[in-house]
Amino acid sequence: MRDVAIIGVGCTKFGELWDSSFRDIFVKAGVSALEDAHMHGEKVDAMYIGNMSGGRFIEQEHIGALIADYSGLATLHIPATRVEAACASGGLALRQGVLAVASGYHDIVVVGGAEKMTDVGVDTATDALAAAADREWEGIMGATFPGLYGMIARLHMHKYGTTREHLAAAAVKNHRNGSMNERAQFQNEITIDDVLGSQMVADPLRVLDCSPITDGAAAVILAPAEIATRYTDTPVYVKASAQASGTISLHDRKDITTLDASVWAGRRAFKMAGLAPKDIDLVEVHDCFTIAEICAIEDLDFVPKGEGGKATLEGMTAIGGSIPVNTSGGLKACGHPVGATGVKQAVEITEQLRGTAGKRQVNGAEVGMTHNVGGSGATAVVHIFSRNR
Amino acid sequence: MRDVAIIGVGCTKFGELWDSSFRDIFVKAGVSALEDAHMHGEKVDAMYIGNMSGGRFIEQEHIGALIADYSGLATLHIPATRVEAACASGGLALRQGVLAVASGYHDIVVVGGAEKMTDVGVDTATDALAAAADREWEGIMGATFPGLYGMIARLHMHKYGTTREHLAAAAVKNHRNGSMNERAQFQNEITIDDVLGSQMVADPLRVLDCSPITDGAAAVILAPAEIATRYTDTPVYVKASAQASGTISLHDRKDITTLDASVWAGRRAFKMAGLAPKDIDLVEVHDCFTIAEICAIEDLDFVPKGEGGKATLEGMTAIGGSIPVNTSGGLKACGHPVGATGVKQAVEITEQLRGTAGKRQVNGAEVGMTHNVGGSGATAVVHIFSRNR
Repeated sequence: MRDVAIIGVGCTKFGELWDSSFRDIFVKAGVSALEDAHMHGEKVDAMYIGNMSGGRFIEQEHIGALIADYSGLATLHIPATRVEAACASGGLALRQGVLAVASGYHDIVVVGGAEKMTDVGVDTATDALAAAADREWEGIMGATFPGLYGMIARLHMHKYGTTREHLAAAAVKNHRNGSMNERAQFQNEITIDDVLGSQMVADPLRVLDCSPITDGAAAVILAPAEIATRYTDTPVYVKASAQASGTISLHDRKDITTLDASVWAGRRAFKMAGLAPKDIDLVEVHDCFTIAEICAIEDLDFVPKGEGGKATLEGMTAIGGSIPVNTSGGLKACGHPVGATGVKQAVEITEQLRGTAGKRQVNGAEVGMTHNVGGSGATAVVHIFSRNR
Repeated sequence: MRDVAIIGVGCTKFGELWDSSFRDIFVKAGVSALEDAHMHGEKVDAMYIGNMSGGRFIEQEHIGALIADYSGLATLHIPATRVEAACASGGLALRQGVLAVASGYHDIVVVGGAEKMTDVGVDTATDALAAAADREWEGIMGATFPGLYGMIARLHMHKYGTTREHLAAAAVKNHRNGSMNERAQFQNEITIDDVLGSQMVADPLRVLDCSPITDGAAAVILAPAEIATRYTDTPVYVKASAQASGTISLHDRKDITTLDASVWAGRRAFKMAGLAPKDIDLVEVHDCFTIAEICAIEDLDFVPKGEGGKATLEGMTAIGGSIPVNTSGGLKACGHPVGATGVKQAVEITEQLRGTAGKRQVNGAEVGMTHNVGGSGATAVVHIFSRNR
């Protein structure tokens, strides 16, 4: 098994990109990543693309080949593969890229994530997203994603005394981080009162507890670790790539406040890297809703179960806190183009470990983690990255 | 890079499975494959699923996790990943499984392919399939898949003197093979006159030139070659796993009678295996239309360009001919549940190399090939298998 490194990253602005097509945004992210790796396209051996629902959002499947073609790489006939696991599609594409390099089958691999969500109406988007949950036992009963995470939040409040303010604190912190990220969909700061006074979506979750509908694309370039410094002075090494599944429906779980897939993916990643939570300098977690961030930092063992809300309100997860969470602004403020999110997380960690994250830089960051979830936790994928090989 | 072997296979009946749900069919195929490998589910380390369009056909994405869950493997939290490349989704899932074992990340990997296509109307199915082509430059102009392959056929006839009878001969041969395959959707023999007299679909292609809309699922179990004989006396070794891309639109190609992706995937596979076309004892090719089989045997270098039709009419590709093609009945007669097809091809070759293909057995088959195409050739994936390590 070969070690793998990230040698280039690229990312579009996230937001309502009505002037750009799906094809435009992934080419933009990919070209940025290639330029960042000081590389021309003809060096690329293979491509993996995370995309959740091209079929529903733009009536286009076969996204891997489409992207290879529109990137000008079809003339090289490179393998191009789309990977889908709902909102974890980007993280899983990254993992397939890592496996492809680790296996020795390919050397230079582009991993992209892209989603164009704002070209359909909100109802269509909500229904398309519901396809990440159990259509036959959840979607058909009327359960939307805010509804599912609303139930998780309600039980978390009941079992652990988590408060509305605790939840809101995650959104407030992520908007603060987003205000320092020029790629973020929302760059405005908000207050706890703003969250508590915002429109109800699915009790207890309000609109400012929810990640938005977003267009965006992100890309990273992978290479075998032993040749990474040919392309960049600041490679970022992949120390662990771990994935786990859980039940697709909430009703099949013993405790819906724990995402077993996150717990297992986290444990496997720590074991693979030979590291523990205390060794992680910062983490991008999957905060599709504020409650999801609370559950994530608990499930990944950064705080004991039930204490995520309190820790967030007290600033433990802010930049400058003991474990900065979602320095990019997270899904909440940076935005959540579902297939792109897992790749964007890796872009953020790479820039942090390079020390180029600007105003939102975590001082002395050496080791970072990403955590990407599909649906309500049927899939989780966790990566650990380090400046040191 | 570790060598990889197939240690178990399973496949449902292909056809209009109105009594079974998507969930039923993939569990059935997976359980058959595990039983064939004399293995319980708890041995499984990871799962890859080929599926083209769950979002359109059953309004369900997140197919990897869904399948892990309904197979009872969510309790083991195994990684489960869906791979999509239109009609090549199954072949690409197989390739990701091979890479996962080759990399050392996973040992026992289930690769499944599944599609449930008959629960929507024909118009919806046709439109969903058109998402495998270029929606913005082909689909929106009214090009359906029969239309695209109709143009390929027309040019092939013009350039090479291929006749309607040549095309029909592929369907006649595949129905003959299908009549010996109890899994096949169509088990009736047909004549050249039947094809020529059947309903016109997209001139010159008639309905008996076209693969059908099909429900079905297939699965194979992969293991590192060095431990394969722990599970089976008849492992089948993966000698090559090669993939290539081409332009997504026909109009971007120099010559639409050649699928560059097939040419490149074939060349790469032969090189990886250290073999030539003469070393292959039988091949399953992607005959979504009769013309596609003609192009495939040319692009894979089994016959010179332009001679595929004549060779087919003369019996070269029949069982007993010099290179038997589509002993399963191919997509035409066995059926084409798009995400399952690439995996079913591997099931057929495995059974042939084991010598258990019954009436359609190719005598003394030692080395077999599969060829799976996405869209009109934007993706192709070729595998070579051998009885010998």
